[in-house]
Order: sequence, then C-alpha cells, then structure tokens
Amino acid sequence: MLDPVGGAAIGNAVHTCYIMSANINKDLVRERDKCNFDIQELIHIIDGGREKTLMRKKVEDLVLSIEDLKDEIPEDYLSHKEKFENAVRKGCKLFDVYLQLNDNNLQKADRSPSNTYRIHEGVLKQVNPFLLHFGLFVPTIANQANSEQQAKWLKKSSKMIGTYSQTELGHGTFLRGLETTATFDPETDEFILNSPTLTSYKFWPGGLGHISNATVVMAQLHINGKSHGTHLFLAQIRDFDTHEPLPGIKVGEIGPKLGFNTANNGFLGFNNYRIPRTNMLMKNAQVLRDGTYIKSKNDKLTYGSMLLIRVHILTDVAYELARAVTIGVRYSAVRHQSVLKEGEPEPQVLDYVTQQHKLFISIASSHAFRILGQWMWKTYTKVMAEIGDGNMDQLPELHALSCCLKAVSSYDSVQCVERCRLACGGHGYLLSSNLPGVYGIVAATVTYEGEYTVLLLQTARYLLKAWNGAINGKTLPPSIAFLSDYMNQKSRTWIDSPEAIIEGFKAVVAGKIKTAFDSIQSHVSKGRDFEDAWNLSSVQLTAASEAYARFLICEVFWSETKNMTNVSRNVAVVLLQLAELYLVYWALEKSGDLLMYSTISKKNIDNIQSRYEELLGLIRPNAVGLVDAFDIRDEILCSTLGSYDGRVYERLMEEAAKSPLNKDKVNVSFHKYVKPLMIKHKL
Amino acid sequence: MLDPVGGAAIGNAVHTCYIMSANINKDLVRERDKCNFDIQELIHIIDGGREKTLMRKKVEDLVLSIEDLKDEIPEDYLSHKEKFENAVRKGCKLFDVYLQLNDNNLQKADRSPSNTYRIHEGVLKQVNPFLLHFGLFVPTIANQANSEQQAKWLKKSSKMIGTYSQTELGHGTFLRGLETTATFDPETDEFILNSPTLTSYKFWPGGLGHISNATVVMAQLHINGKSHGTHLFLAQIRDFDTHEPLPGIKVGEIGPKLGFNTANNGFLGFNNYRIPRTNMLMKNAQVLRDGTYIKSKNDKLTYGSMLLIRVHILTDVAYELARAVTIGVRYSAVRHQSVLKEGEPEPQVLDYVTQQHKLFISIASSHAFRILGQWMWKTYTKVMAEIGDGNMDQLPELHALSCCLKAVSSYDSVQCVERCRLACGGHGYLLSSNLPGVYGIVAATVTYEGEYTVLLLQTARYLLKAWNGAINGKTLPPSIAFLSDYMNQKSRTWIDSPEAIIEGFKAVVAGKIKTAFDSIQSHVSKGRDFEDAWNLSSVQLTAASEAYARFLICEVFWSETKNMTNVSRNVAVVLLQLAELYLVYWALEKSGDLLMYSTISKKNIDNIQSRYEELLGLIRPNAVGLVDAFDIRDEILCSTLGSYDGRVYERLMEEAAKSPLNKDKVNVSFHKYVKPLMIKHKL
Repeated sequence: MLDPVGGAAIGNAVHTCYIMSANINKDLVRERDKCNFDIQELIHIIDGGREKTLMRKKVEDLVLSIEDLKDEIPEDYLSHKEKFENAVRKGCKLFDVYLQLNDNNLQKADRSPSNTYRIHEGVLKQVNPFLLHFGLFVPTIANQANSEQQAKWLKKSSKMIGTYSQTELGHGTFLRGLETTATFDPETDEFILNSPTLTSYKFWPGGLGHISNATVVMAQLHINGKSHGTHLFLAQIRDFDTHEPLPGIKVGEIGPKLGFNTANNGFLGFNNYRIPRTNMLMKNAQVLRDGTYIKSKNDKLTYGSMLLIRVHILTDVAYELARAVTIGVRYSAVRHQSVLKEGEPEPQVLDYVTQQHKLFISIASSHAFRILGQWMWKTYTKVMAEIGDGNMDQLPELHALSCCLKAVSSYDSVQCVERCRLACGGHGYLLSSNLPGVYGIVAATVTYEGEYTVLLLQTARYLLKAWNGAINGKTLPPSIAFLSDYMNQKSRTWIDSPEAIIEGFKAVVAGKIKTAFDSIQSHVSKGRDFEDAWNLSSVQLTAASEAYARFLICEVFWSETKNMTNVSRNVAVVLLQLAELYLVYWALEKSGDLLMYSTISKKNIDNIQSRYEELLGLIRPNAVGLVDAFDIRDEILCSTLGSYDGRVYERLMEEAAKSPLNKDKVNVSFHKYVKPLMIKHKL
Repeated sequence: MLDPVGGAAIGNAVHTCYIMSANINKDLVRERDKCNFDIQELIHIIDGGREKTLMRKKVEDLVLSIEDLKDEIPEDYLSHKEKFENAVRKGCKLFDVYLQLNDNNLQKADRSPSNTYRIHEGVLKQVNPFLLHFGLFVPTIANQANSEQQAKWLKKSSKMIGTYSQTELGHGTFLRGLETTATFDPETDEFILNSPTLTSYKFWPGGLGHISNATVVMAQLHINGKSHGTHLFLAQIRDFDTHEPLPGIKVGEIGPKLGFNTANNGFLGFNNYRIPRTNMLMKNAQVLRDGTYIKSKNDKLTYGSMLLIRVHILTDVAYELARAVTIGVRYSAVRHQSVLKEGEPEPQVLDYVTQQHKLFISIASSHAFRILGQWMWKTYTKVMAEIGDGNMDQLPELHALSCCLKAVSSYDSVQCVERCRLACGGHGYLLSSNLPGVYGIVAATVTYEGEYTVLLLQTARYLLKAWNGAINGKTLPPSIAFLSDYMNQKSRTWIDSPEAIIEGFKAVVAGKIKTAFDSIQSHVSKGRDFEDAWNLSSVQLTAASEAYARFLICEVFWSETKNMTNVSRNVAVVLLQLAELYLVYWALEKSGDLLMYSTISKKNIDNIQSRYEELLGLIRPNAVGLVDAFDIRDEILCSTLGSYDGRVYERLMEEAAKSPLNKDKVNVSFHKYVKPLMIKHKL
C-alpha cells in the first residue's frame, strides 16, 4: 500500500523483463518476430503512461532484489499453518522494506487504479495477511473517525495492526440483520460489545485470525434500550505486547479456502467486552457523554469506500485475467498437438481456431475491464467531488453503475480464467501452472464486496425506477437516456458494424427492462404484493441488469478505444480488433436477445459469426505480443506454463522435483502401510 | 472396486441416514414435512432398485464402522506430503477390509454404473491412490493381455501394484505423437524401453509417483529399425520388496493440483530399461521370438475401455452434482437473509427465485446425466455384444455419442457445481463446505479421458459425414435419422410443449450442421484445403456437436421419464417437473439458436420464460425432499453447509476449531516476525 517514491535511479528499468537470452523457446521467438506493433507502447498504455511503467518496474526491481522474500519449498506443498507462517514472514519483510523507504507514511495518497504494487501477488502468491490493515482498517479510520480519533489512531506508534469486522457467521449482505451489539453504559462512559448468538460471531475478516490486535467492528448501537442501527467501533482485541487475546474476546481463524489461504480470515466473539465511548467512529453520527445520540447528516456518506473498492475490482480482475491469458497464450504457442494435415509436423495448439476462441476473448476482456476501470475511476472522482460540494444527485447512478459492472466483470473473469485453464489441458490443472491460483483469487471477487445477484438486483431497481419515470415523461440521467428512445421499440435498420451491436444492446436493455416491468405489473394485477411480484420476476430483473452492464462495457470499450489519441497506427489497429472481438463475441453469445429485441436478422448473425472467425485470424499473429504487452514478470505470473522464455516442460519437471515427497526414493507409507498389507494377504 | 457380497444382515439398513434426532434444524424439519412425494421410492429409483440401495447402505455401514478410517485433523489442513501418507493409510485399510470380504476376488465383475462404492469419496475425500490399479491396470491386463499373461499377472501373489502410463509430458490427446520407445532386441528376446526426450517422460498417471511398483506402458514399437506404432507393455518399475525404483527407472510425483491431490499422479522416465518380449500385451497384436510382427485384427478393439470410462463419467458427474446441490439446497433452506417484505423476518434464501434459478437446474441435470448414463450403459452393452458377434456397425455411432455426451455432461457439471458454490455465498468458498472439493473433482472430468473440444470435434466429424451422406441420399443411423427430415428445413408449427422444445433442438442440430457444412464448403470453394476449412469452421463444428448432445439429453431425459413404469403418481410428477425444467432452462439458454433455426416465435419464448418461473415455484416445496432423495450420507457429503441435520453454523465453528493454527493463542510468527518489526520501527 505504501508508495516507495525516491531511491535508486530508474532510467533503464523498462526493459528488464525482456530477457535477451538464447534460452528462449523457438516458437516464442518466432511469435515475437511476427508481432507487428510496438509492445513497449502498449505496455505504457496499459500502465497508464510511461511514468507509471517506470514506477511499477522500480517497485518490482526493488522487491525482487530481496533474497529473503523467496521460498525454499513452493508454498503449495506446505500445510495450512506453514503457509500462514510463511506469509507472515514475507509480509513483515515487505512491511519493513516499505517502512524504511517511506518513513511514517502509512497511507497511500493516490488511490487511482494502478498495477504498481501487483508484485505482492508474486511474492505472497495469494494475499498479504496485512492486506486489510492498509486496505480497510486505515481507510475506514481516515474516512469515518473524527479528527482527534484519526490523530490518535493513525499515528505510527499506535501499535495497532487492524482489520475491519462487519460480516458475521449468519449475516453478510443484509447489514440491518447484524447481531453484534454495542450497548452504551452511561455509568462508565463505555460501550459493552456482545455477540449474543452463535450467528453473531464476526466471521471472514482478513487478518482477524492471528494477525490483528485491533479491529473496526460494525455493531448495533443501543442506548437506554433504544436501538440506533449499525455503527462502527474500534476495539482492541489482543494485547499489544504479548499478542494474547484480551479477556472477553474469542478469536481465531476460520480454516482453509478455495483461495486467499494466507489472508488469515478470522472469527471474533465478544463477551461483555468494554470499550470507551470515544471508540465509536464519530465523524458522522455521534454519542455524547450523556447518551445523546446525534444522527449522521447523511447515511449515504458511508458509501464511499465500498464504491471505491468496487471500482478497483474492475482493474483487479483485468489484471488477473491478463495473468491467466498470458499463461494460456504462451503455453499454446509452445505446445504442439495432433496433425492438421497428414504428413506435416504437429502444429502449435494456438493455430487451432477453437483454441483462439478459448483464449482471445480473455485478452479482449482484460482490456475492456481495464478501460472500464479507468472510466469508472473518472466517474467516481467526479461524483465524489460533487458530493464534497453537497450535490448528491449523481450518487444513485454511480451506485447502479458500480453494482452491475462489478458483478459482470467479476463473473466474466471467472469464466475466462476457467477457459484459459481448460485451454491448457491437463497441465492447467497443476497448481504450478498457477491457473488454479488465479482462479481462486478471481472466484472470490464474485462474492465479496457485494454478491453477484444482490448487486444485479440493486442496479435493476435503479433501472426499473428509471423506466417507470420514463413512462411518466421524466427526463432520465444521461447514461440511460436511451431508454426513452426505445420505449416504443423504435425500429432501427441494422447495418453490420460494431455500432449496430451497441445499438442492438441498447434495444436489448430496453426490451429486458420492459419485459421485467410488465412481468411485475402482471403479477401485481393478479393480486400479488409488489415485493412478491419483484421476487417472481427477479430472474428477468437480473438479466436486464446484466444486459445493461454488457451494453455499458461494449459502448465504453469501443468508444474509448476509437477515440484514443497519441497512439501509433498498429497499436490502434490491434486494440480496435480486440474491442470489436469483444462486441462480436457477445453479440453471438446474446444472439437470442438481439433476435428478440433488436432488428438484427438471421443473415446478420451469420455475418457476425464470419466476422468473429476473421477477427480471430487477424489477432492470431499478434497473440503472443499482446500478452507480452501485459508485461507481467515471471515472478508475478508464478507459472510453469506461462513464463517469458517458454521453458514449459523443463519448469514442470523442475517444480515436480521440489516436491518434498520426491526427496525420498521410498515414502515411509510403503513400509508403514503397504508392505504389512501385502504380507498379511500374501499379495 | 471389490464387491463385498455376503456378511452382515442388511434388513433395516435402509433408514440409517435418517437421524431421527431432535437436533435437526427447524427449517429443514418444516421443509421435509412439506415434501409431497415418497423420498424412499425416489432413493430406490436413483440407486437402480431397492436391492441396490440395500447393497449401497451395507457398504456404507461397513466402511463407516471402521474407526481407523477417520481423520484426526481434517485433511485440508495437512501438507501435500501428509495428505498422501494419510491417503495411503486409509487406502490400505480399505484394501484390507475388502480383501478380507472377497478372498482372492480382485476384480469387479459387474461394471454397470452404480453408487455402491461412493463411500470411498467420503473416506478418502478425493481419490484413492490405488484407484488406477483397480480402475485401469487390472482391466487393461484383462482386456489386452493374452490368457497366459493374464494367468500370471492377475493372480493375487503377483506382487504388482500397477498403473497405466500413457500420457507424456508433451503428449496427451494425440497418441501417435507419443515418444516413449520399445525397441526389440532379438539377441536377448527383450524390449528396450527408452524416454528419448524430456517431453517423452510419462506424466500424470495416477498412483505412479510412489504407489505403483509396476505399470502398463504405451510406447512406440520398433523392430529392426521399423516402426509399428504404439503398443502396450508391462514394466516393473520398483523392487517388490524394498520398493526402490529399479535401475534405468526415474520416477516421482508431479506435485499438487486443483483436486485429486491424493491420487499420487507421477512421472516416469526409462533409460535403456529392459523387459522380456513376453511383457508386451499380446491379446491382439504380437511380436514373435524372431521379431515377426503380427498385426491386430482390428485396431478398434482397444476402444472398449475408453468408451466404458466415458459412459461411467455421466454417472460420476451426476453423483458429484447431487453432492453439490444437496449442499446448496440444504444450506439455502437454513440460511436466512434480507427482507422480502418490510416488517417480516428474514426469509430462507431458498425463497428467492434467483436462488432457485441457481440451484434447481443442478437437481434436474443430475437426474438427466444419471438417466443418460443408464441409457448409454444399455447402448454400450448392446453394441459390445454385437461386436463380440463380429458386427462393428454400431461402433461409430456409439463412439460419437460417448464423445459429445461426456464432453457436455462434464462441462455442464462444472458450471452447475460453481453455481451451487456461488449460491452459498462466502461460506461456499470455505473448503469445509466441500464445494471447492467437488469442483476440483468435476473440473478434472472435462479434461481427462478425452478433452472437451477434441471430443466435440470427434462427434462433429461423425455428424458432418452423416450430413454429407444424407445429401447424397444415404440412410442415416436411427439416432440421427431426423437430420434427413430437416435437410430442407421443413417448417413445423410450434405448439408450446416439452416436445416442441425437443423438436426445436432437432432443427437446431440440423441448422448448425448445415451452417458448419456450408462454411467448410465455402472455404474450400475459395481454394482452401479441406483441413484448413475444417479448422476455420471448428467453432461452429463444436457448437453443432454440443447442440446434438443437448438434443440427446433432452430427448432421452424426457422420454425415459415420461415412460417410467411402476412409479407412484407424486414421484412421477416431480420427475417430470425436473425433466421439463431441464428442457425449458436450455430452451431459454439457447433461445438464439431456436430463433435462428426453429419455428419458435418471440411470444413462445416469453411463454417459456413464464413456464420456467412457474416450474421453479412448483419444485420449491419439494426441493429439500429432492436432495434428501440423493441419499448422500454426511460422511460422503463432507460438508459443513450440507449435512442432513442442518447444523450449519455449529459445524462451521467446529471445523474452524480444528485448525492447528487455532491450537495456540499466539502463533509463533508473532514473536518471530511481527514483534521484531514493531520494535525496529517503533510501531
């Protein structure tokens, strides 16, 4: 999280990843020779400018120069406990390095999307156990605590390693249902924290298990028998010196997961645990000494950090997708299989069109989500500035955008990572390919910070409200103004083009909203409550919301790519090919929707299918160049199949050789279990 | 693999899983009260009859009565090496138990699909390290070795623990590309086995790493400088007494994977390793003492075991899907979240239609694949009997069916398991939910025994050939005779019904084959080679093949369900609802295809959407009953979220408590790394 500005010269750091070694797989050399665009230029575009590339490379060089950060035995061979201890070792080392560089600067000022610190993923494989300290604990205090609290808690010597405890064993999505209580005791000027039920135990916060000695806790505030809803409190949970859990605290970790196994997710129970009244985060709502409760001026002010995380998820999944497809494409260039033509040698699997079909959509999607992430960041900062000026008008739209885009980008990314894994056949199933690792990271994004379906339904509520408004003649916000045009299903002639697909998706959004709206009306007209009608129509509502996100991604990806300036012709061409591929791919995937709601014809769909196949062929020669342009160092890729030099088979055997099981010629279990069995049964 | 017939009385074993305890979650009790069909009857149907249920329960009771098979620490906390050793411990114990019951009977006679031995999955969590000994080594010898070889190698005292080594580091799908060589040495009457390159190392065989002391090896046969293609050989690889690898053998395990971590997948290299000539499996092809090579009468005779495994995969994925959806549905009945109506308590998440949408298709798909598995078994045994009589006519059709059904059922199952996992929110991400575990098992089926895309293209080749035949007036095999009807796109009026969907899918198959066929023709007419034209059209070809599999599943599932006899009315009703749900779900998923190629109208699609939502509502009250009818014991389910009693939250905390990390209040890493860091930087 820290920004290690200053330090060594950064001049010639740019080319470090291009190992100009003779030891590079010949197929990859040939592929790179074929690439017709300036990879370095695209690297800068992806990083957000040359300066950002230099900064990223500086951090990478710095971190990778530290010998202590390397593993003797690959982490995947370790036990759950060993993995944690190894992650703490490396997390502390990173902490140390950054602290030395940034004396006292514990916060990162620039929160714009960036790949500068992705090297952590390489070093820690999955997640830094200190992630939530910097990612949520510190920002929450900075945003929700008043200035005295901030001064006290954010200073370096506060001794706090913190996390953010919201989710409970029985409650995630529905914050009003949280059961942890904070009851004000006017006698002692304290809050008494309690976990009244098993389901009220905090469950899931990262770093809570054995790392944190403090946490921000969300709890139901009770004063004089009156409930005031959920608020945030700061609670120390372990002794700062001994690290022992304090009396009244029950804390531990929740066990192994599909991914995030070094995140040290934990549980936490309170038993009449007392904290000073001044430990309530009081920037907005307050509780005074006499128990007077002062309401926050605006409930929505707490939205900010959740929104920000959702915006960042777009960039995060774009990056994970870049990792997955880098592995998939490089492996497919190195791997040879079967025969296309009798008598010829086995072709690279990348030459199979079905393989291109599996992989290239991931390259396109990574660019799409990156560009959407930048676009959302701009929107976010604009709206936040307006809110600072007291204008909250754009908040509902921003919220609606962030919900459906987070949902769809995370879900798509999981599908794409899986396609990349399957494209690598059996070897993709090995943890050493790191495709299962990337999958574990991406899979989590579908659920955290707003579950997929819940988020789609939030956007659907916004869309339905807008539709209803449009029916009643209201002016709609710019991003959905097109709904008014399509209210009456104005027919537009389809002329094959990317723009036609975008227009077509507008018609799909309108058509799906209308269908869902009519479905609700129909249920209501049959005597159902609105809530039941909503629930009965919710599959259609999520589909409408997904269609809206799809339209947005297509429109923004296409227009931002088309309107790029200061870009060389060949880079512009490949980026437009990728954007068009994205549109065409989704037009084919959603052909049913287009046939239902747009003016597309069957012939148009056949044409799109041909264009899709054409685009795969156009992208093919640049495929390796395109993944090289993601510029992910081998130490971050962590993949036997995807390394820059393409020494796939050598690495697979080298990794296998590291297995502790392979250290002994004969495993102890033979003598302990197998031999006695053979003797007993005279086998 | 062994059939433990005989032994204890089996009379009252049927009801053992129904723990009549007061300690059952109230929501589940209520759900079970609501269920309107006879669960026991459906259990028997799923097992294939009452006798099979009794047998399954007998095996379950027997195995679960063995205290030694339990784990002290849940396997997921162990290191890779510890997992292996623990699996050998349990695998030997199971081996022992079955051997005692079935003296000398090392083969399972009845190879029909069955759930009798699924208890292994519960005991061993993932895969028995001895799996390939029984699953492939023994059957291959039984099928491919001559009678003298069988007598020698299959006898109990042969001391062999074997596996089957085919796949190499650089070669999977394309058997002709295998590089391992077996060169005949006429001087010594031996074959010399060699791994001439790194890529020729055998890689992936289960149990090869440290378990097996022998293996069947596929290698290129060379005699007097002439190559005779791949053949099978038996090679001892470790000393029978010491278990040390023999001179000339390099063997070890390949490292951790997404699943199958107890399978002990291994690598194997040969360096001038000699075996007697008589170690070639000589039931079909032979090499005589003087080096004369006698060709096999029919190459296709080796097809059998691969086909059989593909048939079994349908039943396997049906079972895994049953596990996943049992967890998803029970958890969704226990979990409460948010509000549907203000003022009312939080509803069960199973009441959300979006949740039903996520889950019920998995119940339906499990039944679909189970029924298709039985249907394929019948087809398989029929065709094999014909082949025994020298009639190979039906082999191409059986091959085409087995390819596309294996591909689609495995792929669908992965998607469904993921939906079930996502339906369980964050808790589904915990390994203790076992959804990631089930996912790991199912994910592998997409790749092993024929990769997804490769298999679809095999079926496509069959379909294209048939289409070409039909154009030229040839009579088609019964299962695709309908293609002739649709050659001229005969329009049939769509009358909303399940049958209309099946008819519609026929039109889709024909339409997609025609489009792919025309695409190939068009490329050829532009001067492309047929092979290139095929490759360029291969995305469409796989789509045609997938559509064919979808049609088959729909047709067989629907007709077999409709034609069930001896079934009570209410069971028949729920099964028909599931079959219809399956049809309707896929009609909506494939609405684009139906609009392209069938006579369906937009209005029909709206009707299907309504019917889909109606069906979800009809299935809802029986949902828990339906998963109870899969009758998967808690010890096989291995899930904190899915147990029969619904003690979800208690189990989550109990599992967390088992974490070795939670045994110490303060982890050693605090004193070792965190504290020194805090002191150094005065934090």
